[in-house]
Amino acid sequence: MTEQRKITDPDGPIHPFDAATSVRMREDGAFVGQAGGNYWAFVGPFGGATAASMLRAILQHAERRGEPLAMTVNFAAPLEAADYCIDVRCTRRNRSTQHWNAEIRQGDDPQPKASATAVLGERRVTLSHQSAVPPTPRPREELPVFDPSGTPPWVSRYRFHFDAGAPILSASALADPQSAFSQLWMADAPERPLDVLSLTAIADAFFGRIFHVLGTIVPFGTVSMTTYFHAAAEELAAVGPWVIGRVDARRFHRSFNDQTGELWSPDGRLLATTHQLAFFKA
Amino acid sequence: MTEQRKITDPDGPIHPFDAATSVRMREDGAFVGQAGGNYWAFVGPFGGATAASMLRAILQHAERRGEPLAMTVNFAAPLEAADYCIDVRCTRRNRSTQHWNAEIRQGDDPQPKASATAVLGERRVTLSHQSAVPPTPRPREELPVFDPSGTPPWVSRYRFHFDAGAPILSASALADPQSAFSQLWMADAPERPLDVLSLTAIADAFFGRIFHVLGTIVPFGTVSMTTYFHAAAEELAAVGPWVIGRVDARRFHRSFNDQTGELWSPDGRLLATTHQLAFFKA
Repeated sequence: MTEQRKITDPDGPIHPFDAATSVRMREDGAFVGQAGGNYWAFVGPFGGATAASMLRAILQHAERRGEPLAMTVNFAAPLEAADYCIDVRCTRRNRSTQHWNAEIRQGDDPQPKASATAVLGERRVTLSHQSAVPPTPRPREELPVFDPSGTPPWVSRYRFHFDAGAPILSASALADPQSAFSQLWMADAPERPLDVLSLTAIADAFFGRIFHVLGTIVPFGTVSMTTYFHAAAEELAAVGPWVIGRVDARRFHRSFNDQTGELWSPDGRLLATTHQLAFFKA
Repeated sequence: MTEQRKITDPDGPIHPFDAATSVRMREDGAFVGQAGGNYWAFVGPFGGATAASMLRAILQHAERRGEPLAMTVNFAAPLEAADYCIDVRCTRRNRSTQHWNAEIRQGDDPQPKASATAVLGERRVTLSHQSAVPPTPRPREELPVFDPSGTPPWVSRYRFHFDAGAPILSASALADPQSAFSQLWMADAPERPLDVLSLTAIADAFFGRIFHVLGTIVPFGTVSMTTYFHAAAEELAAVGPWVIGRVDARRFHRSFNDQTGELWSPDGRLLATTHQLAFFKA
C-alpha cells in the first residue's frame, strides 16, 4: 500500500468520492476500506467521507431493507491513512424500519475510532408540508468559487460558492466574534449527481463555525454528527450535483459548540437537516 | 410486580422522575429498571424517561468519567410496562472523552427496544460566545399553565406555560397547515432542580410538531433523538426548575419530520439543543 495507490485521479473513471468511500465485504462479513488520500483533513480523513463509508457498508449489507432516515456518527479518534474495517450489525428489524450499528477500526486497536447508528425505513407517500422557508441565494454563476489554496485536501473535493458568511481568516482571532451563519452553493468536485452517500458527506462539509466566529483557524474536531434525510432516493436522484447549504451555530462554551445545517435542492426542497457537536480550543 | 407498585406518589419523598428513571446494577453488570407508571405515553413510556434511564445507567457505571456532551437515542420498538434491562458498554476511552453505547431490552426479546450512544468529556473553561439570541417570553406568571386533561399520563409530570404556539387540537386536521413553532416555560411537576438527567427528558417533552401543524392528533412517534448539552453540571444546578423551550420543525414529508428544540435558562443561557426525527401518519 503506497501513498500513490490511495490518491485517485479526480478525472478518472471512478469519481474520487466513490473511490475514497468504497468498501468491500470480507469473508467474515466485515467491510474493509482505506482512509486517506484525496479526502484528508487536518489530522485524519474528512469526517464526511468516514460517515459515508460507514453508511455505504450498511447499505451494502445483504439484509438491509429501506432507505436511510437518520444517521449519527460519533468520531472517537482520528483514523490513520491506512486500511480500516467496519463491523455492521442490525440491532432491530421491524416491519417497516431497521436499526443498524456500525463501528470502524484500524490495525490492532480493539476500540472503534468511529461508531455510527442508522435508522432505515420505508418512505410512504403522506401529507407533505415544508414549514421552513427555502433559501434564496444569489445565482451560483454570480458568486465566485471558493479558492481552496492553503486548505486541507478534502476542501478541493468540493466546490463552494458563498452567498453569505464566506470565511475570512486572519493569523489570530479577531477582537469581536463574527457571525456563525453561512449560506452557500455546494457540490462535489468534479460534479457528481447527488445520492444519500454524497449527501451524508456534504452534511459535514460546512467549515467549523468556530473559524467563522473567531476569524482564524483553531484546533477543532467534530465530536458527534447527526443527519436526518428528508427525501426519497428518486427525489435525490432528480436534484443533480448542486445543493444550497445554510448553517449556523448557537453557543460556543466550555470547549464545545453546536452546529445546525440544512441542505436544500436548488428548487427549494429540504433534502437533509444535519447537526453537530464540535470540539474547539480557544 | 403490580401496577400499584409502578405508580409513585407525586408528593412522596422521591421525585416521580427519579423513581421512574431509576436503575440498579445487577451482578452481571447490566442495569435493571421498570418502564411505565407515571410517565406513560400513547403506546409505551415517554421517550424522554427512557432516554434518561439509559443515560443514568451510563452515569452510574464505575468506569464513567466526564459529563455528557452529546446523546443520541434511537427508539426501535415501544417498551412494555414491565421490567427492562440496559446493557452499557464503553466503546472508546480517550484522555478527555469517553464513548458509550447503551441498549435496552425486555423479557426474552433479544433485539433492543431502544439503543443509545453518548459522548462524555471534560468541559474546560474556554472562550464563551453565544451566537443565538435568547428567547424573551412573557413572564411565566402571566401565562396560563397548560391543562393536561385528556393527555397521556406523562404530560401531567410536567408544567407547561405556552408563550407562543400552544396546541389547539380539533377532531380532524385543519384545512391549512398551522405553525410548527412553540415557545414555552417548562418544568418537572412537582418542580425539581434541573440536572442533566431531567434535561435529557425535558428535551423530549415538546409535543409532536405534526399535532401543531395539523391541529389534531395523528399516529406519531420519535424515531431518533439527539441532544447536545451546553452547560456544565454546576451551571445546570444553578438554573433551578424552570427552563424556556423553543421548538420548530422544517419539513413533514414521506412519513417523517424533523424537529429542533432549544432549552434555555431563564437568564438567557442556552443549556441544550435537541433534535428529532419523528414518524407520522397523515
